[in-house]
Amino acid sequence: MQIRILSSFIVAAFACALLAGRLDCEPPSTNAAIRSLLDEQQAAWNRGDVEEFMNGYWNSPQLTFAGSSGITRGWQSVMARYRKNYPEAAAMGHLDFSEIEVRTLGSDAALVLGHWQLKRDNDHPGGVFTLVLQRFPEGWRIIHDHTSAEEKR
Amino acid sequence: MQIRILSSFIVAAFACALLAGRLDCEPPSTNAAIRSLLDEQQAAWNRGDVEEFMNGYWNSPQLTFAGSSGITRGWQSVMARYRKNYPEAAAMGHLDFSEIEVRTLGSDAALVLGHWQLKRDNDHPGGVFTLVLQRFPEGWRIIHDHTSAEEKR
Repeated sequence: MQIRILSSFIVAAFACALLAGRLDCEPPSTNAAIRSLLDEQQAAWNRGDVEEFMNGYWNSPQLTFAGSSGITRGWQSVMARYRKNYPEAAAMGHLDFSEIEVRTLGSDAALVLGHWQLKRDNDHPGGVFTLVLQRFPEGWRIIHDHTSAEEKR
Repeated sequence: MQIRILSSFIVAAFACALLAGRLDCEPPSTNAAIRSLLDEQQAAWNRGDVEEFMNGYWNSPQLTFAGSSGITRGWQSVMARYRKNYPEAAAMGHLDFSEIEVRTLGSDAALVLGHWQLKRDNDHPGGVFTLVLQRFPEGWRIIHDHTSAEEKR
């Protein structure tokens, strides 16, 4: 059993070594922890639970959210923005995150890129997002979110 | 002279200590280096020199640029996007960055938020941007850019 764990580690280390460029290869635990946070956010949104969705964000006045309406500052204001833009289940629709990429930035920060899409009765808005996360004693949290809607073409 | 340098250091350290929250206080050299990179980008743009502007970005196929048209990958593709969207001086206009905020993420990465505005003869588009930078042997470079245009309201 220990040999299997060791060989998995060697395979992972070798895969990391193969990756070109200067970006750190994210340790499996960081990658898994961040993907799990996003899965939990998606599930919370799809239950209509905005407060639980907000648990993925750093609960701080320094949390920032950027988008086409500028910069929103602070956990309370970011939650208020979500509640205003998505006041009920029909507006929230069904959220899907896809094509998630996690890049570590040192041991306690990470950059995440991904696509979002909302399936609603009357439309299917979507686009891309950039998240910056930091590792806190309580776990990884989003400290900055920049979300764009895709231009209708 | 040494006493003045030492006292500047103590003042800077004290200012850092005053800052609340978990975000690292950026060392003056990081802050200054990143602001200087952005100043150089702005000046290059305003001379119509897209190639020099692109020097602020990591020259790598792993560079990413996110926005309302999705994710563009690689230094060459990001430059091609700029050249296509801003084919001549009239389209490039005069670029101003403002309200720049630099937050360090460990010793070799940083998150930057800011506002951009283009002054052109017929319009003044603007919005916000998120940059993630990494420190390379040759200096700080943007490894990811997420830029949004402000909604017309």
